[in-house]
Amino acid sequence: MFRSVAVRNIERADEATVRALGELGVATVHEAQGRSGLLQAYMRPIYPGARLGASAVTVLLHPGDNWMLHVAAELVKPGDIVVAAISGPSTDGYFGDLLATSFRARGAVGLVIDAGCRDVRDLTGMRFPVWSKAVSAQGTVKTTVGAVNVPVVCAGMLVNPGDVVIADDDGIVIVPRTQAGEVLKASRARVVNEEEKRIRLAAGELSLDLYNLRAPLEKAGLRYVDSAADLRVIDGLG
Amino acid sequence: MFRSVAVRNIERADEATVRALGELGVATVHEAQGRSGLLQAYMRPIYPGARLGASAVTVLLHPGDNWMLHVAAELVKPGDIVVAAISGPSTDGYFGDLLATSFRARGAVGLVIDAGCRDVRDLTGMRFPVWSKAVSAQGTVKTTVGAVNVPVVCAGMLVNPGDVVIADDDGIVIVPRTQAGEVLKASRARVVNEEEKRIRLAAGELSLDLYNLRAPLEKAGLRYVDSAADLRVIDGLG
Amino acid sequence: MFRSVAVRNIERADEATVRALGELGVATVHEAQGRSGLLQAYMRPIYPGARLGASAVTVLLHPGDNWMLHVAAELVKPGDIVVAAISGPSTDGYFGDLLATSFRARGAVGLVIDAGCRDVRDLTGMRFPVWSKAVSAQGTVKTTVGAVNVPVVCAGMLVNPGDVVIADDDGIVIVPRTQAGEVLKASRARVVNEEEKRIRLAAGELSLDLYNLRAPLEKAGLRYVDSAADLRVIDGLG
Amino acid sequence: MFRSVAVRNIERADEATVRALGELGVATVHEAQGRSGLLQAYMRPIYPGARLGASAVTVLLHPGDNWMLHVAAELVKPGDIVVAAISGPSTDGYFGDLLATSFRARGAVGLVIDAGCRDVRDLTGMRFPVWSKAVSAQGTVKTTVGAVNVPVVCAGMLVNPGDVVIADDDGIVIVPRTQAGEVLKASRARVVNEEEKRIRLAAGELSLDLYNLRAPLEKAGLRYVDSAADLRVIDGLG
Amino acid sequence: MFRSVAVRNIERADEATVRALGELGVATVHEAQGRSGLLQAYMRPIYPGARLGASAVTVLLHPGDNWMLHVAAELVKPGDIVVAAISGPSTDGYFGDLLATSFRARGAVGLVIDAGCRDVRDLTGMRFPVWSKAVSAQGTVKTTVGAVNVPVVCAGMLVNPGDVVIADDDGIVIVPRTQAGEVLKASRARVVNEEEKRIRLAAGELSLDLYNLRAPLEKAGLRYVDSAADLRVIDGLG
Amino acid sequence: MFRSVAVRNIERADEATVRALGELGVATVHEAQGRSGLLQAYMRPIYPGARLGASAVTVLLHPGDNWMLHVAAELVKPGDIVVAAISGPSTDGYFGDLLATSFRARGAVGLVIDAGCRDVRDLTGMRFPVWSKAVSAQGTVKTTVGAVNVPVVCAGMLVNPGDVVIADDDGIVIVPRTQAGEVLKASRARVVNEEEKRIRLAAGELSLDLYNLRAPLEKAGLRYVDSAADLRVIDGLG
Repeated sequence: MFRSVAVRNIERADEATVRALGELGVATVHEAQGRSGLLQAYMRPIYPGARLGASAVTVLLHPGDNWMLHVAAELVKPGDIVVAAISGPSTDGYFGDLLATSFRARGAVGLVIDAGCRDVRDLTGMRFPVWSKAVSAQGTVKTTVGAVNVPVVCAGMLVNPGDVVIADDDGIVIVPRTQAGEVLKASRARVVNEEEKRIRLAAGELSLDLYNLRAPLEKAGLRYVDSAADLRVIDGLG
Repeated sequence: MFRSVAVRNIERADEATVRALGELGVATVHEAQGRSGLLQAYMRPIYPGARLGASAVTVLLHPGDNWMLHVAAELVKPGDIVVAAISGPSTDGYFGDLLATSFRARGAVGLVIDAGCRDVRDLTGMRFPVWSKAVSAQGTVKTTVGAVNVPVVCAGMLVNPGDVVIADDDGIVIVPRTQAGEVLKASRARVVNEEEKRIRLAAGELSLDLYNLRAPLEKAGLRYVDSAADLRVIDGLG
Repeated sequence: MFRSVAVRNIERADEATVRALGELGVATVHEAQGRSGLLQAYMRPIYPGARLGASAVTVLLHPGDNWMLHVAAELVKPGDIVVAAISGPSTDGYFGDLLATSFRARGAVGLVIDAGCRDVRDLTGMRFPVWSKAVSAQGTVKTTVGAVNVPVVCAGMLVNPGDVVIADDDGIVIVPRTQAGEVLKASRARVVNEEEKRIRLAAGELSLDLYNLRAPLEKAGLRYVDSAADLRVIDGLG
Repeated sequence: MFRSVAVRNIERADEATVRALGELGVATVHEAQGRSGLLQAYMRPIYPGARLGASAVTVLLHPGDNWMLHVAAELVKPGDIVVAAISGPSTDGYFGDLLATSFRARGAVGLVIDAGCRDVRDLTGMRFPVWSKAVSAQGTVKTTVGAVNVPVVCAGMLVNPGDVVIADDDGIVIVPRTQAGEVLKASRARVVNEEEKRIRLAAGELSLDLYNLRAPLEKAGLRYVDSAADLRVIDGLG
Repeated sequence: MFRSVAVRNIERADEATVRALGELGVATVHEAQGRSGLLQAYMRPIYPGARLGASAVTVLLHPGDNWMLHVAAELVKPGDIVVAAISGPSTDGYFGDLLATSFRARGAVGLVIDAGCRDVRDLTGMRFPVWSKAVSAQGTVKTTVGAVNVPVVCAGMLVNPGDVVIADDDGIVIVPRTQAGEVLKASRARVVNEEEKRIRLAAGELSLDLYNLRAPLEKAGLRYVDSAADLRVIDGLG
Repeated sequence: MFRSVAVRNIERADEATVRALGELGVATVHEAQGRSGLLQAYMRPIYPGARLGASAVTVLLHPGDNWMLHVAAELVKPGDIVVAAISGPSTDGYFGDLLATSFRARGAVGLVIDAGCRDVRDLTGMRFPVWSKAVSAQGTVKTTVGAVNVPVVCAGMLVNPGDVVIADDDGIVIVPRTQAGEVLKASRARVVNEEEKRIRLAAGELSLDLYNLRAPLEKAGLRYVDSAADLRVIDGLG
């Protein structure tokens, strides 16, 4: 059954690794770890251009109640991001500029919340990044306890305390804490590989040739015709 | 039954009060009036950063028909905002740069519409703010009369002509005309209180202490543990 | 039945006409061609301010598979835009900065896709415009062939290869290739007409007078009253 | 500001009128009162075939809290329906078989709720009709007071205590209390008129003739052609 | 540009073929024609159990206007189904029991409409099947002409007049008129094949063996372990 | 990183306990375990009246690919239910009557899938219950391996292999395997308690009295007035 608990100390991945993953971005890391770990696409940043890698302090809230975000403020360490799940669907505004001020003062670098936030003009002015599913001024109460630093499901993805969170304009991807180093290595390899491709593609080379796609396409049944007129011939024959 | 009527003269709240509420913003005013008055969160500004307080000229439109917005243009006074409800769901583009030009010439400062608008590039260039549920180039006709300055339900909220509309990046909140002064007072008190909190939170003080939340949390059953290992002990016992 | 085919050569509308339509914008062109041709309003640009007219290279993809975008890269001509339909609903990220680099190198000026794209920060930096229904880092595979340059239904609209695509912040409208000249003419006439109106409206003239709406409004049953008090009188009588 | 109040006594429309409106059904009554009064179409009955006319006891709930439904149970009179609005979006299950048992014991004949309900198998077995926007087992608390028998906005429509609620498989329509008699008269006229039409249409007569639509269609520009081949001729000319 | 036209005569597929396809059902026909032709999944029948094959009389309506359904009533032949597209998004109730009475009297066997219908209790009683995206009592007008028997896009799919429409509880699939015979043949082959499989599966045989999936699964990298304990061993090694 | 693995043997809760929980239903069990464990409310049964308790065989599928359902068919034991999560959003039809035939032959009693299913008429005829988020005839392929009997997130809830699944018309709730006995006990206590209440409520007693709500309501600020006229007095004073 549900436990009302806050865990003070969690393990985190190596700080430099976390930061390096953040610089590589969501799409690269997602690919490098085998296309897993993405939160659902309805999660959007409140302003464009934010990009980070951080360790997750997880929070479980109840609908309309932001009490545990205040508990989380004490438990974050510099470089953490708070990842908040709600036990039922909600778009209320659980987080605004006061909590952001407190989070920043304690070292937190952002928030991911499967609900709404508010004061987005102030948050944008502060450059305190939030990824949320809604913007809403709807206030919340402090009457029901939830949990901090327990496993949560946020926007369809299981997040464990200490997992690495990579977030940017493309969304959010979770890297399991113990795999951070391995995923960083794979991500870097991917970047090197992509950079070579980018140069060749920019020069006009085709990905059909770069990736050797012509033979598989033919094998898979793709047929080229010169014009729509030929299509009608095919239809007449076939 | 439905009345096709346009009311020429409406009462408005005190102009300075309306403007002052606009400067305080949606979240503050919403809280200060007891967490009431918010339009639904799907209403979004067409560009970030707009912020206003204005008196509502209300319009009831029929789906696909923007005729009454032209009627409203004559009835607005400087400092008004038009609040348009539609008698059925619609995302058409009822409003564009020509109507915005006319509205501005007559003194209107913005539009809230529970449907779509278009010419958003031009509107953004003009800095004419619109809060809408969609952007759509779909044109509308002028064949069915609705009403101007009657009570309407817009995005889930009852709006009476002359009510105060506060809108910014967080959404839109309605303050009943006769309560504008009282709500302004409560809002200002809230701002002063929040400013004090902001300074203390920025200095690293915790909201747990600032709001005296520790005792209620304990009473409500929150339990702190040092690490996940302790969790397993609890589970074993419990 | 479904044909896995790529058509190399398509007819396009006159280049100057296509460009001129792009400058006139979606709302104007949509109106000028009799309010037809709009894609659904859920299609949004990944950054504000993009605006173009281009010839459609159409692509039919299967859910989760972006193979045919690589085929399309070879078939685009300078000034083309790729219009991608998916054979089932999807929000995956079919397109990112590598494909954009290739598309640009081959002369394509943008993408319309009834699904998701990724690397939006990079695409924004490149100013490579994409109109999509989602942003998602979710990667795609290259295993199932679709088609290039066949008629497709994209976001609810039939698009034929070579049709003219006008896209801006208001959305996307399709002009059938053979009607481009005629629609340009009608669009220009509309712009001239609107410019005159804009000047008069900006001077405070009312659209009620400019469009001669007062008599039709009265005929349609609109009744003016001086104040809400009069409304109650009507109710009492009626 | 928000009032936490329960009004014990409300005026209701004449009982026979209310019942008679219920027998006429939503579509007829909606048309007869000038196409107004419909709740949004996302409101659906939990089982097909329910149909009623009843007087509204209105309830304002807060998200996740069903306390005021218990207050309402005392204030309903035989023949009433409870109409519950929520002050924020919610799909929780505010109502189940126990409350239904109590409502029925006190004479209430149904519920309209702009949120979720649960125990739908039991409710179906009891034939206690509910129109809701969701089915959800999510439980609710009893901690925040709302209001009973004040005006509420439910699923986009203003409902006053004592208004007449007509609900069936097509949805829900509200008839203002003071207009019930007039709307009943108009509805009955409509039914008579429709019955005549039904007989003639069933006999194969066309609505084009029955409603004299041929001349207006021609005037509005509809053009008949014999076959698709003629279409191509028109296109060639035009 | 948009043509206001009604085409009196269209070609239809062979009647027995159309009926036979209807008996085979949507899923089978969809598969047999290469997984193409499906309308979007939001289209739902108003009552369970309806199932048909019919020739499409296509209609293009404008939002809130059902005029062309009356035009269509004259042009349907026995065994036809009306397929109605709307030029913009709408959930209004364009169709009810009077039109159904007329349609039935003229031989039409159903309706597919990318919008709403009403009188669903009566339609269910008549067993007149409708597939729609909404149920709504919202009435419509007769003021703007559209088209009958032109190609339309309905729920994301291009439908030509005379195309074969197969509809049941799974949704709706379109078979191009000229391919009806070929698709029927492929569908029947599929049914025979499936019947054999059903018998073997019902006897407890596994599809892994029936379809020879074990080797491909192994090749694709699937690894069997005996228990979760073995998973941890893999993780430790890998 | 993602593991392509199928776990042959899992632990299950006591069979009689699982069955007993199924008979108690979703709402009761959800309440009894502290209002946790619910899948999101968009998951709906394909026909009304199904109700079960079963042990979860979990499956992770990739969008558009149902291969692992075939793997699961071999691993189910009598009394199991398959719980299928998809690694990205999808509404395709992953499951139809052939797989249902196989599942039933192997003892599985139902399916929960966070995507679509098809052949719902046949499944209804077989009384093979499925809870899904969509009905769609869209076919799927067998090309990408996923996993069987690993932890999955389905419709927002973490499900471990062997967890107890309770599903009925109200939705789906998960009981962790090791807590099944404890939750059954709490559920039964709740049922007894509810039965007593039902009798008293049916006799006309009010829940206000039964639950002693009058004093808390007064303390929380609820104010009773006799009529709307009194409301106006309050407003005047307040």
